[in-house]
Amino acid sequence: MVSTWVPDVSSDTPFSLANIPFGIISSPADPAPHAAIAIGVYALDLKLLSSHASFTDIFPVLKDHVGVFSKPTLNEFAALGRPVHREVRRAIQDLLSAETSHPEVLKDNAGLRETALLHRRTVKMHLPMSIGDYTDFYAGFHHAYAVGAMFRGPQTALQPNYTHLPVGYHGRSSSIVVSGTPITRPLGQIIIDPTAEPKQPTTAPTRRLDIELELGCFIATPNKMGSSIKVTDADDHIFGYVLLNDWSARDIQTWEYVPLGPFNGKNFATTISPWVVLADALEPFRTKGIDNWTPLQGYLNEGKEESVFDIELQIDLQTPQGDATTICTTSSKYLIWSFPQMIAHHSLGGCPMRTGDLLGSGTISGPSMREKGSFLELSEGGKKDIMLYGMDVRRFLKDGDTVIIRGTCGSPGARVGFGECLGRVLGAAPL
Amino acid sequence: MVSTWVPDVSSDTPFSLANIPFGIISSPADPAPHAAIAIGVYALDLKLLSSHASFTDIFPVLKDHVGVFSKPTLNEFAALGRPVHREVRRAIQDLLSAETSHPEVLKDNAGLRETALLHRRTVKMHLPMSIGDYTDFYAGFHHAYAVGAMFRGPQTALQPNYTHLPVGYHGRSSSIVVSGTPITRPLGQIIIDPTAEPKQPTTAPTRRLDIELELGCFIATPNKMGSSIKVTDADDHIFGYVLLNDWSARDIQTWEYVPLGPFNGKNFATTISPWVVLADALEPFRTKGIDNWTPLQGYLNEGKEESVFDIELQIDLQTPQGDATTICTTSSKYLIWSFPQMIAHHSLGGCPMRTGDLLGSGTISGPSMREKGSFLELSEGGKKDIMLYGMDVRRFLKDGDTVIIRGTCGSPGARVGFGECLGRVLGAAPL
Ligand SMILES: [Ca+2]
Ligand SMILES: [Ca+2]
Ligand SMILES: [Mg+2]
Ligand SMILES: [Mg+2]
Ligand code: NI
Repeated sequence: MVSTWVPDVSSDTPFSLANIPFGIISSPADPAPHAAIAIGVYALDLKLLSSHASFTDIFPVLKDHVGVFSKPTLNEFAALGRPVHREVRRAIQDLLSAETSHPEVLKDNAGLRETALLHRRTVKMHLPMSIGDYTDFYAGFHHAYAVGAMFRGPQTALQPNYTHLPVGYHGRSSSIVVSGTPITRPLGQIIIDPTAEPKQPTTAPTRRLDIELELGCFIATPNKMGSSIKVTDADDHIFGYVLLNDWSARDIQTWEYVPLGPFNGKNFATTISPWVVLADALEPFRTKGIDNWTPLQGYLNEGKEESVFDIELQIDLQTPQGDATTICTTSSKYLIWSFPQMIAHHSLGGCPMRTGDLLGSGTISGPSMREKGSFLELSEGGKKDIMLYGMDVRRFLKDGDTVIIRGTCGSPGARVGFGECLGRVLGAAPL
Repeated sequence: MVSTWVPDVSSDTPFSLANIPFGIISSPADPAPHAAIAIGVYALDLKLLSSHASFTDIFPVLKDHVGVFSKPTLNEFAALGRPVHREVRRAIQDLLSAETSHPEVLKDNAGLRETALLHRRTVKMHLPMSIGDYTDFYAGFHHAYAVGAMFRGPQTALQPNYTHLPVGYHGRSSSIVVSGTPITRPLGQIIIDPTAEPKQPTTAPTRRLDIELELGCFIATPNKMGSSIKVTDADDHIFGYVLLNDWSARDIQTWEYVPLGPFNGKNFATTISPWVVLADALEPFRTKGIDNWTPLQGYLNEGKEESVFDIELQIDLQTPQGDATTICTTSSKYLIWSFPQMIAHHSLGGCPMRTGDLLGSGTISGPSMREKGSFLELSEGGKKDIMLYGMDVRRFLKDGDTVIIRGTCGSPGARVGFGECLGRVLGAAPL
């Protein structure tokens, strides 16, 4: 990998020259949210960059879209399509590389460098996209199996439809927040005594506040209502990826979800990491997902094996006392359905995907107990303590706990990662 | 009721002076979508009206929002809150009444009258709101009971949670369309032989295309994430109501919906009527809903009985041959949960409601067989023919069928209604 002239880019940064993820920042100098990319400890302000006289020389594909990086979301850029994202990422990689063909623009331009290359400490991150619809799938095989076995036993752990189609449900887009946003413990109806009949709910703060470690995928280009996206074309409709924490209240969910699915148990908050890693940046990390032994319907047949990514994922829990424990390390390869398959299925009946729509993978867990992406699994249904540094334990989250998800691919000096997907739990509102 | 000077306002129009519903139109003279109200056979162009010199005299509450009716959706107007909607509706009623206090503005102003009072035949209707999130509830008691009894028998027809909380699920906002938009029959995975084990799906056009007659409710003003809307305050957060047809593919839904709820069986299309009937316009038609014998959690306790509306609802089916049959007449009073209860429950855990969010009531059916709001019920699970004019029959919808839902309140000369919620079924796309 070529190296960058940008200072302080450590070999361990998730934001190497091989990455170039896009986000929405605001800064003291420009408080209106606008586009940037991350490189090392810096954000490169693309709105400022696009004011440079040579901008359309360096980014000829943007010559009719010069204002695209001044918008408060990345939707307009995403809508330009994957070939444009590819060109723009390549041109930025060139601008930032030690042997750039345009040193005069940024590398040797102290004025622009000082205003446009902002330490990320000094910028505020915003939601990168305006999200019209959010769909959460259930493609994490080991999670679906473990949770199914917990509630129904190993023989019928997976529902009959599970290997035939990517099971998913519509989520709530209004409560998707960017990493760092505090999460208020939800109130809800819960059943204190599950053995009592008839069931008697109580309205109270959830006692089983959980997380779900997921990968999120943003849609770039739409399909027309009434037509579908072919599985072999679906990759072209993808903008990029983020880490996603699908906060879940297990006790609320258990009482409400039959027959129409999760509702208040999920819709109080979903956190995403702020930097969108472009689809192209993850291409080198393709791998085979979980083998599906069921003959697939034609519309789900990808005709290739390497359809998921091997991203090393990790969950850290930090207690109010400040002790941090890594409670899970796993990989995004443990999916039985790829995002192209999810997109092909979602649009099969003609449902329109729109620019900025977000798809969640479903909870990602590996086969071993160190690789579980939810407290529900880590505590075996709330029955076992999870051991933490500081002589503390958890079965579910306590007020003041902070959850940090990280994800990274590649080797030192050329890492492609997501940064943090972080949320701290606040006590419930008064009833 | 006072009368209007507007010509050709028949005593049977749903758009009497007592109504004044808001919508988004475009016209040959002004093809950019903008706001209007409906009166008799006319649409009054509010964008043109707001260009009149006296506009802020007549609508003092809009003096800082003169451009609000030039926007392509009603969201900005909705966000101004219910007291503003009330004042604006009253001022329009005055402008249009025979004894208007401002005859010079419209009644005696031939120039503006001719350009602003447009025959509705000549305008195109658009989606009235930008809909961030759409939630579909299940509050139609007789529907929930009938469908539950069909699948589980009468003893366990209602799930244990049904009378404790307004059951609902997140719907798909991208496929909500305005009345008149054609509906393509969806492809999906269906089980041709339900007795075979293991289950073997086939990818094919749905054979059980159905409708669900519902009332839709638009949110005017938001709550902050992490806080909830009290049931007694919820009416103030409501903008208005539309008729809603939740098109459903029963065979797709049956195979997919366990454990996470309806997905492709619902997300291909939802049709709404174009004119938003303001919350105030329905106030005179309040009535008591279905009695709930279960003691309610405090946050659902409204402290009043008349919390739903008695809207006469009707479904007409028109065959490709042109024969129309009224297959259902029912009332929106058959709800066991009111919209304020749905809003209080939806926001209990802190989920933010946003301006323009849409809530569906769930299918509305009455107790008798003439009052069923879905083919599933009308055909008793697809086992009985529904008799139609033209010697035709249906169990579910055929290609070329047109479904028209209508809803109206009040007596001749002062009717408050919705107009048509119409959709015609097109054949499935090739696989
Ligand atoms: Ca999830
Ligand atoms: Ca429905
Ligand atoms: Mg969540
Ligand atoms: Mg539908
Ligand atoms: Ni005056």
